[in-house]
Amino acid sequence: MGNFYKDNDDLRFYVDRYIDWAPIVEVTELGKAGAHQGERLRETVETYRDMLDMLGTFAADEMAPAGVQIDRAGGHTLQGGEVRSPKAFDALFAEIKALELHRMCLPTELGGMNCPLLLYFLTGEMFARADVSTMAHFSFHGGMAMAMLVFSIREGTTEIDFDKREIVKTRFAAEIEEIASGSAWGAMDITEPDAGSDMAALRSVGEQDADGNWFVTGQKIFITSGHGKYHFVIARTEKPGAEDDPFAGLGGLSFFLVPAWEDLPDGSRRRLATLDRVEHKLGHHGSVTASITFDRTPAHLVGQRGEGFKYMLLLMNNARLGVGFESIGLCEAAYRMAKAYAAERPSMGKTIDKHEMIADALDQMDVEIRGLRALAVQSAVHEEMSQKLQLLLDNAPADADLGERDRKATERELAMHKRRARAMTPLLKYLAAETAVAHARMAMQIHGGNGYMTEYGAEKLLRDALVMPIYEGTSQIQSLMAMKDNLMAVMKDPQRFLRRLAAARWRSLSARDPLARGVARLEHASLSTIQLLIRRTAADKLRSLGEVPVSAWSERFFKDWNPKKDFAFAMLHAERLTRMLADAAIAELLLEQAERFPERAEILARFLERAEPRSRHLADVIASSGGRLLAQLTP
Amino acid sequence: MGNFYKDNDDLRFYVDRYIDWAPIVEVTELGKAGAHQGERLRETVETYRDMLDMLGTFAADEMAPAGVQIDRAGGHTLQGGEVRSPKAFDALFAEIKALELHRMCLPTELGGMNCPLLLYFLTGEMFARADVSTMAHFSFHGGMAMAMLVFSIREGTTEIDFDKREIVKTRFAAEIEEIASGSAWGAMDITEPDAGSDMAALRSVGEQDADGNWFVTGQKIFITSGHGKYHFVIARTEKPGAEDDPFAGLGGLSFFLVPAWEDLPDGSRRRLATLDRVEHKLGHHGSVTASITFDRTPAHLVGQRGEGFKYMLLLMNNARLGVGFESIGLCEAAYRMAKAYAAERPSMGKTIDKHEMIADALDQMDVEIRGLRALAVQSAVHEEMSQKLQLLLDNAPADADLGERDRKATERELAMHKRRARAMTPLLKYLAAETAVAHARMAMQIHGGNGYMTEYGAEKLLRDALVMPIYEGTSQIQSLMAMKDNLMAVMKDPQRFLRRLAAARWRSLSARDPLARGVARLEHASLSTIQLLIRRTAADKLRSLGEVPVSAWSERFFKDWNPKKDFAFAMLHAERLTRMLADAAIAELLLEQAERFPERAEILARFLERAEPRSRHLADVIASSGGRLLAQLTP
Repeated sequence: MGNFYKDNDDLRFYVDRYIDWAPIVEVTELGKAGAHQGERLRETVETYRDMLDMLGTFAADEMAPAGVQIDRAGGHTLQGGEVRSPKAFDALFAEIKALELHRMCLPTELGGMNCPLLLYFLTGEMFARADVSTMAHFSFHGGMAMAMLVFSIREGTTEIDFDKREIVKTRFAAEIEEIASGSAWGAMDITEPDAGSDMAALRSVGEQDADGNWFVTGQKIFITSGHGKYHFVIARTEKPGAEDDPFAGLGGLSFFLVPAWEDLPDGSRRRLATLDRVEHKLGHHGSVTASITFDRTPAHLVGQRGEGFKYMLLLMNNARLGVGFESIGLCEAAYRMAKAYAAERPSMGKTIDKHEMIADALDQMDVEIRGLRALAVQSAVHEEMSQKLQLLLDNAPADADLGERDRKATERELAMHKRRARAMTPLLKYLAAETAVAHARMAMQIHGGNGYMTEYGAEKLLRDALVMPIYEGTSQIQSLMAMKDNLMAVMKDPQRFLRRLAAARWRSLSARDPLARGVARLEHASLSTIQLLIRRTAADKLRSLGEVPVSAWSERFFKDWNPKKDFAFAMLHAERLTRMLADAAIAELLLEQAERFPERAEILARFLERAEPRSRHLADVIASSGGRLLAQLTP
Repeated sequence: MGNFYKDNDDLRFYVDRYIDWAPIVEVTELGKAGAHQGERLRETVETYRDMLDMLGTFAADEMAPAGVQIDRAGGHTLQGGEVRSPKAFDALFAEIKALELHRMCLPTELGGMNCPLLLYFLTGEMFARADVSTMAHFSFHGGMAMAMLVFSIREGTTEIDFDKREIVKTRFAAEIEEIASGSAWGAMDITEPDAGSDMAALRSVGEQDADGNWFVTGQKIFITSGHGKYHFVIARTEKPGAEDDPFAGLGGLSFFLVPAWEDLPDGSRRRLATLDRVEHKLGHHGSVTASITFDRTPAHLVGQRGEGFKYMLLLMNNARLGVGFESIGLCEAAYRMAKAYAAERPSMGKTIDKHEMIADALDQMDVEIRGLRALAVQSAVHEEMSQKLQLLLDNAPADADLGERDRKATERELAMHKRRARAMTPLLKYLAAETAVAHARMAMQIHGGNGYMTEYGAEKLLRDALVMPIYEGTSQIQSLMAMKDNLMAVMKDPQRFLRRLAAARWRSLSARDPLARGVARLEHASLSTIQLLIRRTAADKLRSLGEVPVSAWSERFFKDWNPKKDFAFAMLHAERLTRMLADAAIAELLLEQAERFPERAEILARFLERAEPRSRHLADVIASSGGRLLAQLTP
C-alpha cells in the first residue's frame, strides 16, 4: 500500500502550510458569504486533504501498476474505425468513473464537487508520478467539461444567479453531464499536418449554410484523447490577410464544438468524423494520439466568428500548467526510483548512493523538483485566481457584494494575478518539461545496464518524458513567448525596468541575508541579460540607442519595427534567457518561503549553489556568441 | 543509392589528406620491406578507399533499411534455449558473410585482408550511421577472431616467422577460421548480476581437475552477442585478498575461452552452457544482449592464472574506441536526419532550419561531430600503433631489421602512442557517447511532434543512443579513469605538470594566432582545474601542501594515502573535469589540423566559440561547489 500524498513531505508542505486556501475557496465559491472563513474553511480544506490522501493511495496502488501494464500492452489500436484500448486501461477508467473523479472541479449545481483547480493540478502531479499518460487522458477528460463551462460563460450563454451564487443554466449542460458521468470525453483539435506551432498556417475551414448551420472540414493530427466524442476544433472562417503579415491569419480563425458521432437509440453510434489513425509513439501509451478528419461535419460555433485564437488561448495556460505538474510527477518518480536503486546497489564496497557523482545527481534531482514545485504551485494559484476573479467581475452585478474586496481592488488584484500567471507559465512549462527528460535520463544512467532493460521501468519514464518538451507548445515556443513578453515589457516601460535592474543590483550588495543576495544576483543577471538582448536586438536599427535617453527608447524602438528580423539575436538565445528567468523566479519563491518558514532556507541554499554558476554561464554564452551564426542566417 | 563514405566530406578528409597511412601500413605489414612506400603504399591506400566506398554504399542501401526492419520486429527472442533473430537480421548477416567482411583485419596467412584497425573503425562509423545495433554485432563478430589472435600472441602460442613476416601457426586457428567464414561468432563475458563496473566483485569461478582440465561455473549477464559460440570469460581462480582492499580481488581473476556448445557431426549442437534469457531492451534491437550460465563448462585457460584482468584490459581500448566511432555514426545520422527535416518543414513563412534556435542546434551538432571525429581518428591511430609496435617489438628477433626505426626509437615511439591512447580513449568514449544521446534528443526535438512518432526514426536513434553511455564502461567510469590518470601523473611528476601549466598560460597570452590562444586557454583551464582538484583532494591530509616545495609534493602526497577517501572531491567533479579535458584535447587536434590545412581553421573557430564558455563554466562549478555534499557523504 503506497500513498503518493502521504509519502511526499514537500507536497504536503504546500497543502498544509504554504497555500493560502481562503482566497482560493472564496473565488471558487463565487464569493459566497462565509464559505472561506473560520470553521467552514477548515472543513473545506480538510476535505481537500482527505481527497488528496485517498487519491494518493489510488495513484500508488491502482494507477502505477495499471500504467506499467498499459505500456507493456503497447497502447491503443485502431480497429474498424474505432479505438480499442488495453484491458488495464479500460479497467482503470471504469474505476475512475465509479469514483466520479471527473466531477472534481465542476460546480455543485452541475453535479460536481466544486474543488479548486489547484487541487486538480496537485492530483495531476500524483497521478503523473504513477503514470503520465493515463494522467494525461484523465486530465483531458474532466478538463473538457470544465472547458465547456468556461467557454459558455465567456460567450454569455450561461446564466448565473449571483445572489445565490449559482449557475441557473448553461449551454452545454447535457454534454457536461455526459463527460462528468464518465460516458464521454473530449479533445482539443488544433494541430494540422502542416501547422504545428504556426497556427496562422491552419487550413481546416468552418462554413455556414444558408440556414446559418455551421460545418467543419479538414484534418487534425496529434490529437490527445482524439477518440473522444466532443471536439473543440479551431478552423478558418475568414480569408487570411496579406501574405507578408504572419499574424493576419490568426484573426480568421473561429472556435467550434464538434461531436465526432451521434449516439443512436439502439446504443450504436453514427460517426460524423473519421478517425484516420492512432499514432505509434515512443511512449505515453496510456494516452491516445489520433488524427481525425471532418468532412462537412455539423459544428456549433463557440463565441463570435474570428475569436478562435482567443478562445484557444483561454485554456492554453491550464494545459501548460498541467504539463508542468505532470512533469514534476514524472521527476518525482524518476528521483525515487533512482534513489531506491542506488541505496540497494553495492559497488566498490558501498552502495552507489554513496558514490560522489551519483550522490550529486540525486541531490540535484531532489532540489530541482522542490524548486519546480514552488514555481508550479504559485503559477497555478495565479492562474486560478485570474480565471475566477475574471468570472466574478464579469458576472457580478454592479452593486453586488464582493465580500472584503471592492470592485476596484478586485480589478487590481486580477491584473496582478494575470500578469504573474502569464510570466510564470511558460517558464514552468519549459523548465519542468526539460527537467523531466533530464531526470529520467539520470535515473536510467544511475541504473547502469539495468536502466536500459524494460523490466526496471527507468526506460519507460524516459520514453514518457520525451513528449513533455514537445506537446502543448514546444520548449522553443515557450522560450520565444517568455523572451518576447520580457523584452516588450521593457520597451513599453523602460524606466520601470531600469528601476528593477538597479534594485536588484542594490539588494545583491546590501541584503543582510547572504541567500537574499544570491537571489538578487540571479535576478540582476537575468535583467542585465534582457538589457543586453535589447541592445543587441536593436543594434542594426538604432546603433546609438545607448546614447538615447531611456525615456525615448520606446518610441525609437518601435519605429520601422520588424519583429521577425529585429528580434533575431534574442530569438537565438531565447532558451538560455528562459532558463535564467526560470531560475530567478524559483529563487524568489524559495526566498519568500525561507522568510516565512526558516526550515526552507536549506532548499534555497542548495538551489542557489547550482543556479548561480549556471546563471553566470548563460550570461557568458549570450554575451560571447551568436554573431557568426546570425550573419550566416541573414542573407 | 546512398553512400555514407562519398557523402561525408569530413570523413573523406581524414582518409584522403589527414591520416599518415605509411606508418600504419608499415606496422600492419609487420615492417615488411617496401610495403609502406611509393607505389605499393599508394595502391594499398587506394584499396582502402575502394573498400570504404563499397562499404559506404552497403551501409546506406542495405544496413540502414535492414536496421529499421530489425527494430520494428522488436529484436531477437529466446526460443527453446536458442536465439531466434528477425528475418532482416539473418538476411543482412548472410550478405556480410558472402562479402567476407569478417576477414577485414585478419592477417592474409589466416585468410584475411590484413586491413588496419583504423579502417575497421571508420567502417564502424559508417555502419553505425546505418544502424548502431547491427554494427555492434558486426563489430563483435570479426573482433572476436582478432581477439583470439591477439591473446594467443600475447600468451606465446603463436609462432611468427619474422623473416617472412608471417604467422606460421596460432593456437586458435580453427576457431578464427570458423569466425572469419561467418559460421560462428563470439562474445566477451564480464558482467555478473552483482558486478558491473566493480570487477573485484566477480563471483564466477574457474576450477582445474586433477588432470589439469579447466571448468568454468557462474552466470554472466548483459553479454553482447552472447548467443555466439565462443566466449571469453573472466572468472575467479584465486582466493580474494583481505576484504578491506578493494583491488585485491582483481589479481585473482583468470581468462578463459569457453565454447558454449559443441557442433555434432549430424549438424546439431550439444550445449555446454545455457542461454538463460535475452534481454528486452529500450533499443539496440539488432544486437543480442543475453545472459548465460556456465556449469562446470570445459574451458581453455588463456595466459597465466591471475592474468584475467590484464587480458581483459588488452582489448578494452578497442571496445571503447569502437563505441566512440559508433557514437559518431549515430550523431551523423541524427544530424543529417534533423537537417533534412528542418530544411523541408515550413513554419512562420520560412523553413525551420532558418529559425535561430534550430539553426544554432544544427550548427552545434555539425561542429561537435567534426570535433569528435578528430579525437576518434587520432585515438585510433595511437591505439593501433601501440598494439602493433608492441607486437613488432615482442616478436622481432634482437637483430631483426625494423626498417627506418631502430629498436630504441621504436620503444620510445611505442611509449608515446601508449600514453596518448590511454589518455584519449576514455575522453572519446565519454564525450562521444554523451553527445550521441544529446544529438539524438536534439534531432527528436527538431522534429516536433513527428519526432515522437515511430515512423520518422528520430525516436529510434535516441533509443539506440541511450546505451552508449552505459556499456563498455559507463560515462562515470570513463570519467574516474581520466581523472585518476591525470591526477596521478601530476603527483608523480609535479614539475613537469607545472611546466605544462606555465607553457599553456604563456601560449594563451603570446600566441600570434588568436585561435591558438583560445586553445591554450582551454588547456590552461583544464590544467588549473587539475591543480585545484589536487589541492582540494589533498586538503584534509596536507593542509600545507601549498607551502611545500613542488618537488616534495609527490612524497608527501602518497604518504598514508587512501585513494577511496582522499579522492572524494575529485571524484565528485570527475565528469566535469573529463569534459574539460576532452574539449582541450579536441581543440589541440583541430589546431594542429588548422596549421596543416588552413581551411580547417573555421571548424576550430566554431568549436572554440562553444567550448570556451563551457570551460569557464565547468571550472566555475568545480571551484564553487561540492563541499556541502561531501560533508554529508563523509560520516
